[in-house]
Amino acid sequence: MAKQDKESFVTEITPRSQDFSRWYLDVVRRAELADYSPVKGCMVIRPYGYAIWELIQQAFDKEFKRTGHQNAYFPLFIPESLLTKEAEHVEGFAPQVAYVTHGGGEELEEKLVVRPTSEAIFGTMYAKWIQSWRDLPILLNQWANVVRWEKVTRPFLRTTEFLWQEGHTAHETAEEAETETRMILDLYSSLSHRVLAMPVVKGQKSESEKFAGALRTYSIEALMGDGRALQAGTSHNLGQNFAKAFEIKFQARDKSVQHVWGTSWGVSTRLVGGIIMTHGDDSGLVLPPAVAPHQVVIIPIGRENWRETVLPRAKEIQAELVAAGIRVTLDERDERPGWKFSEWELRGVPIRLEIGLKDIEKAHVMIARRDTREKMSLPMDGVAPRLRELLDDIQQNLLNRALAFREEHTQRASTYDEFKAAMDGRPGFVISPWCGSADCEAQIKTETQATIRNMPIDGQSPGGTCVHCDKPAVAEAWFAKSY
Amino acid sequence: MAKQDKESFVTEITPRSQDFSRWYLDVVRRAELADYSPVKGCMVIRPYGYAIWELIQQAFDKEFKRTGHQNAYFPLFIPESLLTKEAEHVEGFAPQVAYVTHGGGEELEEKLVVRPTSEAIFGTMYAKWIQSWRDLPILLNQWANVVRWEKVTRPFLRTTEFLWQEGHTAHETAEEAETETRMILDLYSSLSHRVLAMPVVKGQKSESEKFAGALRTYSIEALMGDGRALQAGTSHNLGQNFAKAFEIKFQARDKSVQHVWGTSWGVSTRLVGGIIMTHGDDSGLVLPPAVAPHQVVIIPIGRENWRETVLPRAKEIQAELVAAGIRVTLDERDERPGWKFSEWELRGVPIRLEIGLKDIEKAHVMIARRDTREKMSLPMDGVAPRLRELLDDIQQNLLNRALAFREEHTQRASTYDEFKAAMDGRPGFVISPWCGSADCEAQIKTETQATIRNMPIDGQSPGGTCVHCDKPAVAEAWFAKSY
Repeated sequence: MAKQDKESFVTEITPRSQDFSRWYLDVVRRAELADYSPVKGCMVIRPYGYAIWELIQQAFDKEFKRTGHQNAYFPLFIPESLLTKEAEHVEGFAPQVAYVTHGGGEELEEKLVVRPTSEAIFGTMYAKWIQSWRDLPILLNQWANVVRWEKVTRPFLRTTEFLWQEGHTAHETAEEAETETRMILDLYSSLSHRVLAMPVVKGQKSESEKFAGALRTYSIEALMGDGRALQAGTSHNLGQNFAKAFEIKFQARDKSVQHVWGTSWGVSTRLVGGIIMTHGDDSGLVLPPAVAPHQVVIIPIGRENWRETVLPRAKEIQAELVAAGIRVTLDERDERPGWKFSEWELRGVPIRLEIGLKDIEKAHVMIARRDTREKMSLPMDGVAPRLRELLDDIQQNLLNRALAFREEHTQRASTYDEFKAAMDGRPGFVISPWCGSADCEAQIKTETQATIRNMPIDGQSPGGTCVHCDKPAVAEAWFAKSY
Repeated sequence: MAKQDKESFVTEITPRSQDFSRWYLDVVRRAELADYSPVKGCMVIRPYGYAIWELIQQAFDKEFKRTGHQNAYFPLFIPESLLTKEAEHVEGFAPQVAYVTHGGGEELEEKLVVRPTSEAIFGTMYAKWIQSWRDLPILLNQWANVVRWEKVTRPFLRTTEFLWQEGHTAHETAEEAETETRMILDLYSSLSHRVLAMPVVKGQKSESEKFAGALRTYSIEALMGDGRALQAGTSHNLGQNFAKAFEIKFQARDKSVQHVWGTSWGVSTRLVGGIIMTHGDDSGLVLPPAVAPHQVVIIPIGRENWRETVLPRAKEIQAELVAAGIRVTLDERDERPGWKFSEWELRGVPIRLEIGLKDIEKAHVMIARRDTREKMSLPMDGVAPRLRELLDDIQQNLLNRALAFREEHTQRASTYDEFKAAMDGRPGFVISPWCGSADCEAQIKTETQATIRNMPIDGQSPGGTCVHCDKPAVAEAWFAKSY
């Protein structure tokens, strides 16, 4: 980042309240999270953005493994004939697909699809590997890139190529598949809360929003700072649809031949976008400590000779924090402290630790929290455990703040007039009774831009009539405008 | 894996001495490391193979980060016009490239290349990011999939799609770039020895074997169990070739405008193949503990009621080993111990720990080493630290064994008759003086199938004449037949 004075630096970010969408793009670019590439719709994830993704990956991967899943890697290319085996699946994905037609200087006999998702190739291999109920369940996951041709793209939120994990499992019974689908949904939800400090609503998608080829799709939906919802993860019960299309059969305990029951589920680099839009403010990014590449930045303060007078003590503190398992960076650059402050604010580092000559004399350091901007003085002695506590507190505070925001931006509407007023006014979630008809759902979308994000799982009928028509309601749907 | 008796199980692996190539494929398939996919030339990396790759990744990634590199992610697709900017580069890669011609239901205006390597896209972004010497060095790495159209493929060793890491760096001076190139070569070498227990020869490639577009290519070359060499990693000094092609310029300290000096370097899933062919034997895989997904397998021995009598104590030992940081699995399946023994031998688990009723009475366990097949009895008390030592010993023993094998299979030849006799007889490395002519190199390859793997870095001229012609020798070249 070229040297600039603090003022010009800060004004380069559009205020959130003025234009949320431009604010988002400014933060992504100025915090060096990602950059546009010469390939239409594809971004470059820069080191700082990728480091956040690595921390997300580690947290999720650990939970997948703890719950018995194993990682594997399946091919990028899928022969077109495999993709077309499941009718709904191909219908859903065909318009978004990229085709490889030439390889090694020759035109290919069969076009290859660049995977938009990998049910077809997992299904093909599962058919080969599974013979008996003893081979079940198969619980695999892969971390991979996928490609979906997109007309309108936005870094992290919607790009032609993106990184994700996709779990694909095969089970003996319908019950087991449903249990797996929901267990993963719970896992996604708890990781979003605990690691990303991003509250999510768990629920089931409507028929028109479910995954192409699934029996049922569940999702977690977060609420961004502009009141729009973000689908942050999905877990699909595939039933026997893919098993029938790909002939994934097994000999059951009773010797009969059965089709397996499948699930698939994924979260992607979109989560990085979710973190930005849940916590960020006019000064830039605000990172939850659990996914902050640097949890603490140490900034030495002083006159010309700070390298001699302050830096040695700053390095000792750095070593102490490293030893305590805190991710810390020490900013030794020849820049004014004020410039450094705003750069690290922009980058969302949870805690700034300032140390100058006077601090050393008093055996204190100055601390500034990124979330509350609170400043405090702490004794150098025992600073590592104190910062550890502070990081936990920041993590919790960010979650609480986001929960409170969602609370404020969630309303109920039982009439269509109330519904429209809510959607026109302060945006957010609007919970309304719905008749279950796709037509009603489509009309609401046309008229208000709001879609059903999801509905409570195993929810009782709410009674009363649909918010849009006069038919009896079958579910309480969570509506929102969404990304 | 379906239940089978021990005999049929073992005979399904072709003996190494009978047909090394079939032995390799048998091990890959039977140890469930990888499987063929319906996509020509692409494999599925199964969980056991992928777990080995994850351990390799972790070890390498840690060293990259320790030496100041950061991870990032660049797009899979490269517009054709970018690939063609560096003349030698495109000439080298064009025949191997896969093209995306259609996306989102339309023919693309410009064909996209599926990355065979990413110099072109890193170069394009570096040109955008680098303005001043203050922006240098840039030290990036990515873990990614790449695609090179291959006519003949073999799991892990040569596949159309493979996984790798590719480092791309930009520097202020030629010296810095050379230092980086060699530092990475040293790092690759030391990780190969220390983690993979796979000795490698470090050296410089000949002009005809260097990377398309590089100034100089260095490589590490390992010797497989059949006496063929395997190029296990390469580190390229790109000079200013890509900087000139992509206009990556910076304002130097003296205010002049200069092109940066570049490097790139990579290792791939090929390393998994290297491990198999360095250490494996007629019973299957032999894994160095550092990359073994399970370092110890516990097998309870006993009559029908072993679940009541032996299993509880086995689980306690498992917990002890886990607590000591050992990767351990407990085989609770309802199979005969002998069947389990051969399966875990096939899978190359370094240590088998057997525990039966009598062992419990004596407070002992039986240990079998996979590398030496040595069996020994160990007191239960303090078994974890003892196994830790044993794992270190196995790791060291595998390296020593491989070093001794290479020693035995490395010869010197100063005349062409000696050279041909060496290449026809016991295969391995043959070190011979070479005149530096590409014609000589090509003729030797045609006549003997042997290629120059690499040459000592900064080597003195060996004196004498070329092993093939009468011209003065300029280098001592390491020849071998190779993968």
